[in-house]
Amino acid sequence: METLQVVKIGGNIVNNDQLLADFMDDFCTMNDPKILIHGGGNVASEISDRLGVQPTMHEGRRITDADSLEVVTMVYAGLINKQLTSKLQAHGCNALGLTGADLNIVRATKRDHPTIDFGFVGDVETKDIDVTTLGKLLNIGAVPVFCAITHDGKGQLYNTNADTLASVIARALVQQFDVNLTYCFGFDGVMRNVDDPDSIISEIKRDEFQGLKEEGVIKDGMIPKLENAFKAAVQGVSKVYIKNAAHILNNRGTRISS
Amino acid sequence: METLQVVKIGGNIVNNDQLLADFMDDFCTMNDPKILIHGGGNVASEISDRLGVQPTMHEGRRITDADSLEVVTMVYAGLINKQLTSKLQAHGCNALGLTGADLNIVRATKRDHPTIDFGFVGDVETKDIDVTTLGKLLNIGAVPVFCAITHDGKGQLYNTNADTLASVIARALVQQFDVNLTYCFGFDGVMRNVDDPDSIISEIKRDEFQGLKEEGVIKDGMIPKLENAFKAAVQGVSKVYIKNAAHILNNRGTRISS
Repeated sequence: METLQVVKIGGNIVNNDQLLADFMDDFCTMNDPKILIHGGGNVASEISDRLGVQPTMHEGRRITDADSLEVVTMVYAGLINKQLTSKLQAHGCNALGLTGADLNIVRATKRDHPTIDFGFVGDVETKDIDVTTLGKLLNIGAVPVFCAITHDGKGQLYNTNADTLASVIARALVQQFDVNLTYCFGFDGVMRNVDDPDSIISEIKRDEFQGLKEEGVIKDGMIPKLENAFKAAVQGVSKVYIKNAAHILNNRGTRISS
Repeated sequence: METLQVVKIGGNIVNNDQLLADFMDDFCTMNDPKILIHGGGNVASEISDRLGVQPTMHEGRRITDADSLEVVTMVYAGLINKQLTSKLQAHGCNALGLTGADLNIVRATKRDHPTIDFGFVGDVETKDIDVTTLGKLLNIGAVPVFCAITHDGKGQLYNTNADTLASVIARALVQQFDVNLTYCFGFDGVMRNVDDPDSIISEIKRDEFQGLKEEGVIKDGMIPKLENAFKAAVQGVSKVYIKNAAHILNNRGTRISS
């Protein structure tokens, strides 16, 4: 089976010109068919502030109300996605910026939570990905570049978690491709001690995850990221890595295995 | 040759829910391969105001500085393009929202003017359109939906006139398709007297254009729109119409002919 590279970069990469340039050098030399998923980072918060859109919170959780959805649609699908697409094109990579609404590739469901209405937050599962259409785009040489804006197929856009979207897209394509999934961030991998560059954990197996959480080695935003990574490893994605966005082609990084 | 429908809607359509819904009903029932180009209208001005981005003018002409480019990229390529795409999908139309940067389909050149630096304004010609890639997208059943954000292929986005982009895309595709180009606005066509619905001019030939301008029947923003329409009629586009966005399938409207 042909290898497919699914790569996720966070907002902290998108907002850092040097790191983004280093990332693009590597990403653009990957010869396999590939898909990029990007986060948004602090640009959306900055634009919200300037527009006077206040974040809505409920029990400490962020809610995506109509105004917030407009902001993330503008910033993720407009500003960041198109700047990335244009820069990737300049690097010779045939980028096609997408949301889930485009060609109806990612159809999401409004988050269903027993006590909190998250607003326009869309959850996605592998069945929600149109793998046939994605295959056609890859087939014409396109490099799909997704922001995590999705829709319900009835005209409503949704805000979706980008780490989750990357995992779901990777898992949805395991029937057609030998899929590699790489989560990129600003460190060389998951480290026992963030101040010690030599403390990278080269591999985390699923049965070690709970222990690392209890030790406090894996905490905060890394927990859901790794949960998404493990789901991919369990559901047929061949290789799942956490790597430094600045050098995704070398062997440094943390492999996540089932 | 297969017929291709190239349709342009202005910002005043995009901002009017009822008119947009009526337009979509008609647009989505067109069975030919089709491409939509949309303008932005007053949403960009409103967002600029809220962001405190002041319009920059030079000798009465609007300049697209870096801040303005960010706003139009957010609003046109993000908010409007993706809302349109999602709504078209809900109508059963397989929309794919695009800028010129996506798949490098529209490569523009910074406007070259003897006395005014227009900033990030990109001009386009038929040679700048990648008709092969557009053909591949139409071939997989996509309905390309372009906003008028383009790029230079070197990582710089540009703001382009949407009427011009529609004309250029239509003209670029005349070798592959029997192209129809329809400019949609809020009137039934070009009228001798805007207060008299029966004063629609059913056809304007190129040699009548100068006279109608001199009479003041065609003025202001209609002049460049009709110039774009005439260029299309002269350069091989089979049928060029100015129609009401609310009913593009009926015969009312003004035909522009060479």
